[in-house]
Amino acid sequence: MKNRAWIVDATPQGAVRTDHFRLEERPMPVAGSGQLLLRNRMLSIAPAQVAWLKAASYRPQVKPGEIMPSGGLGEVIQSEHPDFAVGDIVEGPVEWQDYAVVDAASVRKRDKARPLDLLLALTGGSGLTAYYGMLEVGRIRAGETVLVSAAAGAVGNIAVQIARLAGCRVVGIAGGAEKCRWLVDEYKLDAAVDYKAADFAEALAKACPEGVDFFFDNVGGSVLETALAVMKTGGRIGLCGIVGQLDGEPDRSLRGVPYQLIIRRISMTGFLLSDFTMQQRLAAGAVMRGWVADGRLRVPVHEYKGLENAPAALVALMAGENRGKMLVRL
Amino acid sequence: MKNRAWIVDATPQGAVRTDHFRLEERPMPVAGSGQLLLRNRMLSIAPAQVAWLKAASYRPQVKPGEIMPSGGLGEVIQSEHPDFAVGDIVEGPVEWQDYAVVDAASVRKRDKARPLDLLLALTGGSGLTAYYGMLEVGRIRAGETVLVSAAAGAVGNIAVQIARLAGCRVVGIAGGAEKCRWLVDEYKLDAAVDYKAADFAEALAKACPEGVDFFFDNVGGSVLETALAVMKTGGRIGLCGIVGQLDGEPDRSLRGVPYQLIIRRISMTGFLLSDFTMQQRLAAGAVMRGWVADGRLRVPVHEYKGLENAPAALVALMAGENRGKMLVRL
Repeated sequence: MKNRAWIVDATPQGAVRTDHFRLEERPMPVAGSGQLLLRNRMLSIAPAQVAWLKAASYRPQVKPGEIMPSGGLGEVIQSEHPDFAVGDIVEGPVEWQDYAVVDAASVRKRDKARPLDLLLALTGGSGLTAYYGMLEVGRIRAGETVLVSAAAGAVGNIAVQIARLAGCRVVGIAGGAEKCRWLVDEYKLDAAVDYKAADFAEALAKACPEGVDFFFDNVGGSVLETALAVMKTGGRIGLCGIVGQLDGEPDRSLRGVPYQLIIRRISMTGFLLSDFTMQQRLAAGAVMRGWVADGRLRVPVHEYKGLENAPAALVALMAGENRGKMLVRL
Repeated sequence: MKNRAWIVDATPQGAVRTDHFRLEERPMPVAGSGQLLLRNRMLSIAPAQVAWLKAASYRPQVKPGEIMPSGGLGEVIQSEHPDFAVGDIVEGPVEWQDYAVVDAASVRKRDKARPLDLLLALTGGSGLTAYYGMLEVGRIRAGETVLVSAAAGAVGNIAVQIARLAGCRVVGIAGGAEKCRWLVDEYKLDAAVDYKAADFAEALAKACPEGVDFFFDNVGGSVLETALAVMKTGGRIGLCGIVGQLDGEPDRSLRGVPYQLIIRRISMTGFLLSDFTMQQRLAAGAVMRGWVADGRLRVPVHEYKGLENAPAALVALMAGENRGKMLVRL
């Protein structure tokens, strides 16, 4: 039995392309003591993966020759740890490959009775980031105006729905008129603004006539720069992604900081899902599952099939082709 | 009797110069109902005044032809408001002139028994901004590493002393080896780093080996950019000035936002003294006066004499010639 794995072939300079990866056959990995052998079942495709390729961050830069790292779900087919049994579904750093050996301490056991896509998109990283960003970092309150970038994406789409449930006035930013219509029609946003349109800044100002109390940004770059101008005095910004500047430099510069922050007393807070405690994860998951069961929260996914399509899924994600969570089902 | 007033003659493009102002003789202003006629006694010279000349902010841009706005202290010589009497000392928007007419509602009565320089430098804007920035925005705690830029300036110098009193490890940033020595020798800072030195980034990293918990920044631009690299994960930044970028564009861009904020979960908060309530001002003033009385806080001032020297004082301030608060005594 062989394992297929996507190897990083080159570090992307501009946009990521499928030829930055090559598929290799490798020997099956072997589980040592305290480890698990997984049959990978689903890969989470996320903009952070491009950031990992480009620079060191909260993790070392991914270098050519390494298997492409990825969150995802795997089924335990061999367990060398007493807490895990064959057939368990776990979430963790499975990488782009058919099989993975992982340290038991690096994964989280998930409920195997639930659909895999909900495990990843709702109570996995994307949904939890949205929940944490809106409710813990943003501390949104009914009646506030909440702005969300990448509002058609995995995190943003859950975030705008949470803001609606919280009784906020909700404005989304997305790429293209069609996505904006989808957000307003399907998710009842008060407005959706196309960042690709020539009149983006004016349209954003018009959509937020009284200014923005909380801006949840996953984009950075010119979208963040433009949104600074519509923040209320005392407004709050939660930052957890830079999908809009990943085709260039992660560390590019931004106009208006610190000046705009000072003159309008804006606070900006960067956060990552890893700041979440297990207790917070469990509570958030329970709340969000309740919303899904009640029909108050929907979880759109964009699914690719087959390991061979993982690079194509990442390229499509960066091109903004997805609505909701981008997944690869193996 | 005539009034002399400094009129803005041109909007500075780069650095502010004395020839951006002209001194004019004007008729004495007349106090109407609810107003006060002041004999100006002391002008506060602050970097924010340059920002006012360059762009609209929390106040409209100052345009050529207007009297140069300025905070300061005046003595009431005619009162058309029942709460104020001749001889009272008030703090408010006195402008660069010998006499001022102000709305009584725009000024705050100060204790005329106290020295004028302490009224402006300690319990006026600079000292209150330092107090508020360190204790309310920064919420500094004993044992934390606190970094302060413009540490030899009016706000920064009070800020580093407050951080020392709070039991923090304190690192200052200042321009030039001499100012840095002064900070370490006179104010017992743990380290002071010269932002003009070629090895600024390396020296800053060396001075903060465990990273910075709270950075109080009044400079912006490349100083803020460099300091991002030494922030701890979860570190906090308080922003209340941009003296380092006022020779150029107030709104210049900064490298590393939002990326550095996200990967190390840094929060940045802009604030202004006007966010302070009267209760907070009174409490801060009382606390700081106690520290001065105990000999635990010193209030260095750099004093110019005569209205005719107000532009020169501002130019000297922007050139970093001051240690502590820059004042003009009339």
